Amino acid sequence: MKAFFDVMDIDAVLALKAGFEPVGAARIPLEQALGRFLSEDLVADRDLPGFDRATMDGYAVSAASTYGASEGNPAYLNLVGAVGMGQTPDHRVGPGQASRIATGGMLPEGADAVVMIEHAEAVDDTTLEVYRSVAPGQYMVARDEDAAKGEVLLPAGRRLRAQEIGLLAACGRVSVRVFDVPRVGIISTGDEVVPVTAEPAPGQVRDVNAYTLTALVAQAGGAPERYGIVKDRYEDLLDVCRRALAENDMVLVSGGSSVGTRDLTEAVLSALSESSILVHGVSISPGKPTILARCGIKAFWGLPGHVTSAMVVFMVLVRPFLIHIGGGTGESPVRVRARLARNVASAQGRVDYVRVRLTEKRGQLWAEPILGASGLIRTMIAADGLMAVDLNSEGLERGAEVEVLLG
Amino acid sequence: MKAFFDVMDIDAVLALKAGFEPVGAARIPLEQALGRFLSEDLVADRDLPGFDRATMDGYAVSAASTYGASEGNPAYLNLVGAVGMGQTPDHRVGPGQASRIATGGMLPEGADAVVMIEHAEAVDDTTLEVYRSVAPGQYMVARDEDAAKGEVLLPAGRRLRAQEIGLLAACGRVSVRVFDVPRVGIISTGDEVVPVTAEPAPGQVRDVNAYTLTALVAQAGGAPERYGIVKDRYEDLLDVCRRALAENDMVLVSGGSSVGTRDLTEAVLSALSESSILVHGVSISPGKPTILARCGIKAFWGLPGHVTSAMVVFMVLVRPFLIHIGGGTGESPVRVRARLARNVASAQGRVDYVRVRLTEKRGQLWAEPILGASGLIRTMIAADGLMAVDLNSEGLERGAEVEVLLG
Repeated sequence: MKAFFDVMDIDAVLALKAGFEPVGAARIPLEQALGRFLSEDLVADRDLPGFDRATMDGYAVSAASTYGASEGNPAYLNLVGAVGMGQTPDHRVGPGQASRIATGGMLPEGADAVVMIEHAEAVDDTTLEVYRSVAPGQYMVARDEDAAKGEVLLPAGRRLRAQEIGLLAACGRVSVRVFDVPRVGIISTGDEVVPVTAEPAPGQVRDVNAYTLTALVAQAGGAPERYGIVKDRYEDLLDVCRRALAENDMVLVSGGSSVGTRDLTEAVLSALSESSILVHGVSISPGKPTILARCGIKAFWGLPGHVTSAMVVFMVLVRPFLIHIGGGTGESPVRVRARLARNVASAQGRVDYVRVRLTEKRGQLWAEPILGASGLIRTMIAADGLMAVDLNSEGLERGAEVEVLLG
Repeated sequence: MKAFFDVMDIDAVLALKAGFEPVGAARIPLEQALGRFLSEDLVADRDLPGFDRATMDGYAVSAASTYGASEGNPAYLNLVGAVGMGQTPDHRVGPGQASRIATGGMLPEGADAVVMIEHAEAVDDTTLEVYRSVAPGQYMVARDEDAAKGEVLLPAGRRLRAQEIGLLAACGRVSVRVFDVPRVGIISTGDEVVPVTAEPAPGQVRDVNAYTLTALVAQAGGAPERYGIVKDRYEDLLDVCRRALAENDMVLVSGGSSVGTRDLTEAVLSALSESSILVHGVSISPGKPTILARCGIKAFWGLPGHVTSAMVVFMVLVRPFLIHIGGGTGESPVRVRARLARNVASAQGRVDYVRVRLTEKRGQLWAEPILGASGLIRTMIAADGLMAVDLNSEGLERGAEVEVLLG
């Protein structure tokens, strides 16, 4: 048997990320910032909520005025006013006093708790019966409990979900500085590949990879740009690769599962200026014949031709690079734990990624490996995610706890 | 204690989905279809891959010619040709014969398996030594193994992920019929709410809900439209609600946690034409004072004023409705299993949603409840998801297995 390439571990490949710089940054409107990565720390511009705020409808009181109160032995408080929403109260609440307040209202001076409306009853316009005691701070938030002015609320590199957008709004930020969306050029190679619009002749296949990779790049937060199909000719591939590198932050070439095309891709990479091949071959299955090169400051990937293999390599390797280049930190893909529904074999010395369907039976999540050749698109459709079978294991037994990478 | 509303179970609320119709559908380019819901079945236009296809570099053979072959006792086959990529082979492979083939190549007539290049060696131009036997079908996919012409590959209602986009491309579909993106009108109410651009006076808060809900709607696949902040005045709210209902498929009003605003929202709902209140009050915490009405064919939600409560109600209740109205079927939110990192109390008779941070320790995922009042935005930022504490439980003990809704 021949060794075709010196394979590298997945972790060693992922560690190479650190050698690539994130893209630039720009200020954009908050409305457009969902899913983007912050490029500056978010610092609180003021205390949040900014005033002592009721979290229930009821009565603002000094907690001490209610101590010992019960259904059988209510406390009697003097009603001294009502707080208008959005208003600074025009009165204070002293010992033995209470003020009507609604959820979100500002507590008057002297009040340090709220009695829920369900736990009190106004006997007349000025007298309140309280049936339960409250502790200081109860049913309210203090003026700086959500954020203190000057505090770092979100670090640079954080992906903005709905709640981070909400926090930015709370801090009055109608625009925000985020990393640019990394541009990713996508090239398909292979003499057998025809456009999706074409009717394939026997031996030909439609260009599935370009569409799948375009969608994967978009899902991961990149801006994909397709460069079409290039036949297996050195000059043609070199020309398109040069153009894609000039116009993007990262380039993906797919195809080249066969030795001939792989050699061609490597030849083209060597001819590109300031290029060096960092990885050729990864101890992953499917996806072993993966190439990673550095071209100037940009990452260039040679992905397998089988779309199923290309997708595994994208999820496990390319996506973390794309997030890093896009400025994201601390971002990890969604993994769920499940029990394996049947035995799975594996070859030692590599990490096998097996497509699984997730099903729930009596409160237990099961990962059911999808049958069928790994090159079949139908296995990707039926699957909810990828399960890794480890480098040092000969396989996994039914019932084993496994981790599934969703996607 | 007074009962403020007759609360409804979460499942009973979710079952009301069925009473609302999905939006319309239109044909769009495949490039724009990521994340959308199919509105027609995808039927295979042809067999896929359409020809017997090699999945490894090597030699196309009749499997029977290799039976009994081993390193010590190789089979000797006659090399009769090579398959060009994307070509129909110009020769057949009979018993005792072999043809060079690359991954993705079309098997010549007579061949029913591929010998991997690592398991054979060409002794000269016409003689091949084979060191391992292969079974029929090995290292190849049959012409209709991925899809048989006429087969339903994807049902209507399926969300299009990267792999579904790939399958559509494989079927030659450059455009696809999908459900429209449901339009969702978002209205903020409350006399204390000021625009994000404003400097809040004491007692006032910035309009966090509109931005958070806008992002949640977009994440769930809807098209959000903001209608600004409406003061707690009947005519103003009625006017904006009418406009939002006319221009959208669903409307969300947030604010109204206080009894006064809630009464106002209900009064406005009653005044809208063809309206009926389906739900007022849900056995969920936070989020109990949630209102759902039907206005003509459209769903109208009254959400709590606290952004943290509004977010829980959105994730648990509104999102499934939005997906249903958007044409999605069989879509369920991502849930992960974890062990609870400390005891959590709960009130019986309602489902408590507790924000948790997920951490991994020695291969075990732990769900760590976030401390702090439930009204704080910081609890949403620190959290990876929501954990439900059941209606009939008094709480959960440390180490209990729990399910976490990500988001």
